[in-house]
Amino acid sequence: MLTSVAAAKVHGDELQRPYVRVAHIEIDPARLESYKAIAKEQIETAIRVEPGVLTLYAVAEQDDPTRVVVFEIYADLEAYRAHIETPHFKKYKADTQDMVKSLKLVDTVPIVLGAKAK
Amino acid sequence: MLTSVAAAKVHGDELQRPYVRVAHIEIDPARLESYKAIAKEQIETAIRVEPGVLTLYAVAEQDDPTRVVVFEIYADLEAYRAHIETPHFKKYKADTQDMVKSLKLVDTVPIVLGAKAK
Repeated sequence: MLTSVAAAKVHGDELQRPYVRVAHIEIDPARLESYKAIAKEQIETAIRVEPGVLTLYAVAEQDDPTRVVVFEIYADLEAYRAHIETPHFKKYKADTQDMVKSLKLVDTVPIVLGAKAK
Repeated sequence: MLTSVAAAKVHGDELQRPYVRVAHIEIDPARLESYKAIAKEQIETAIRVEPGVLTLYAVAEQDDPTRVVVFEIYADLEAYRAHIETPHFKKYKADTQDMVKSLKLVDTVPIVLGAKAK
């Protein structure tokens, strides 16, 4: 159990709500369609079953579709930690490990998260 | 007035709904707080008054907050074109032009835009 003091020591991450991150993923061109199908299934499942997974926007760069960006919003860091322990995320990681050429995860601090009410 | 044939010639962009883009903006460190305040105001106005501006998620990289990423979703390319002609966007561009060191705009094709219903 983290206290607020301990939490503050961990970069302040524990206190950050929401937890927002941008993932940059480079995919093997020969496996791109398979990768996209697997990623789509994993994302749809996570959004449906995990209360703390708020947004997973996965896009491919138009000029180089092997470069994938995922804009990720979790309720907090704990929700992210729970996410990567789920069966659907572990299956995604296992099934795509040979398709991913590089992965860069960029933690961020929100300036403003502007979106239309749905 | 674009026909669907003419539209298809323009990269297929006209047909793309939604239009999704990632902006990478490098800010003068000395002007960062001013930049963030101006960007926040512009984004909040755009979301409030423009029907076709669906999402503008602006974040700063945690390890280098002068690197700003904006994940942008417009209803379509026309909505984006209308956006950059609005008074609030033009004011943002004018007010921040000396604060922005570099700007890279990456057009994308969605794989899946997963988000909780609000």
